[in-house]
Amino acid sequence: MNLQSALEFSHTVLSENVGLGDTVVDATVGNGNDTIFFASLVGKTGKVYGFDIQQAAIDQTKQQLLLTGLQAQTTLICDGHENIAQYVHQPIGGAIFNLGYLPGGDKSIITHGVTTLTAIKTLMLLLRRGGTICIVIYYGHPGGEEERESVEQFARQLDQKTYNVLEYQFINQVHTPPRLVVIQKR
Amino acid sequence: MNLQSALEFSHTVLSENVGLGDTVVDATVGNGNDTIFFASLVGKTGKVYGFDIQQAAIDQTKQQLLLTGLQAQTTLICDGHENIAQYVHQPIGGAIFNLGYLPGGDKSIITHGVTTLTAIKTLMLLLRRGGTICIVIYYGHPGGEEERESVEQFARQLDQKTYNVLEYQFINQVHTPPRLVVIQKR
Repeated sequence: MNLQSALEFSHTVLSENVGLGDTVVDATVGNGNDTIFFASLVGKTGKVYGFDIQQAAIDQTKQQLLLTGLQAQTTLICDGHENIAQYVHQPIGGAIFNLGYLPGGDKSIITHGVTTLTAIKTLMLLLRRGGTICIVIYYGHPGGEEERESVEQFARQLDQKTYNVLEYQFINQVHTPPRLVVIQKR
Repeated sequence: MNLQSALEFSHTVLSENVGLGDTVVDATVGNGNDTIFFASLVGKTGKVYGFDIQQAAIDQTKQQLLLTGLQAQTTLICDGHENIAQYVHQPIGGAIFNLGYLPGGDKSIITHGVTTLTAIKTLMLLLRRGGTICIVIYYGHPGGEEERESVEQFARQLDQKTYNVLEYQFINQVHTPPRLVVIQKR
């Protein structure tokens, strides 16, 4: 069986650490795949908050949630993830980021290191023990390297007594497949 | 559930890619844990070749194999893994290395980049499609950094059409927990 891609492995890790009834955050809704994954994982007794600055992403994902019957446990918010603290106030079991631009969307609208780090720090404050944040970093586009470097630099200096920080990446690719950084609260 | 250590994750990956009847190689028998893991995985119809330059490691592992009833499918060889080609002639499903020194043993006896790379290249020639080599790299000891760098440098330049090369590592640790490099033939 093929080694899992960074994205597949993020779902494996989240499946092992997030369960029914958990509150979770999809910090970059995009095409909605992670929102739907999370909504299945936490079930009717859980709660998914999904953030995106593009209304089109929110609208499409809302449609998909209706079709799959997963809308009840999901709240979609058209706002930047740097404002998560205004909306989420309870402990969370997990979160996911897909950094970069929306595939098939406007490539000039990208995530940025500064706002990404604000969002990560906010989520870390809400993280319960064993809670897990997965950051899937696409970085082949202009601005991507800077964001990757700022996320990795932040993650490397986290206190190992409080967090385990894992990096998962394919190292022999000519192009730049996404890397995964996982922050888990011990 | 805690994120898996590099060693635990190597076993997860090998479990997914090696099965009953496979031939596999433990390139650094050491305390015998991986040999026993492999012998269970491939079963009576499979074959494990285990290499170590220290007779004590071979003897202890032989004892453990007898106790667990896994000796039939296992051949232990007291020789350096750079000589694998003299002993193994059939296609293999997987291999594992634990680079560094034998825990609890003589810390001056360590694996070295040059012979490690010879062994890896030999095993790659024997690897069947989907076959997987796991290299668990301990590098906190003198000489460890050089060996890690030479393995990573070799792995990074492998043709992505033929191999997937994954690196799995904890990046916020003060000490130097092992890193895992996985080479999988596509």
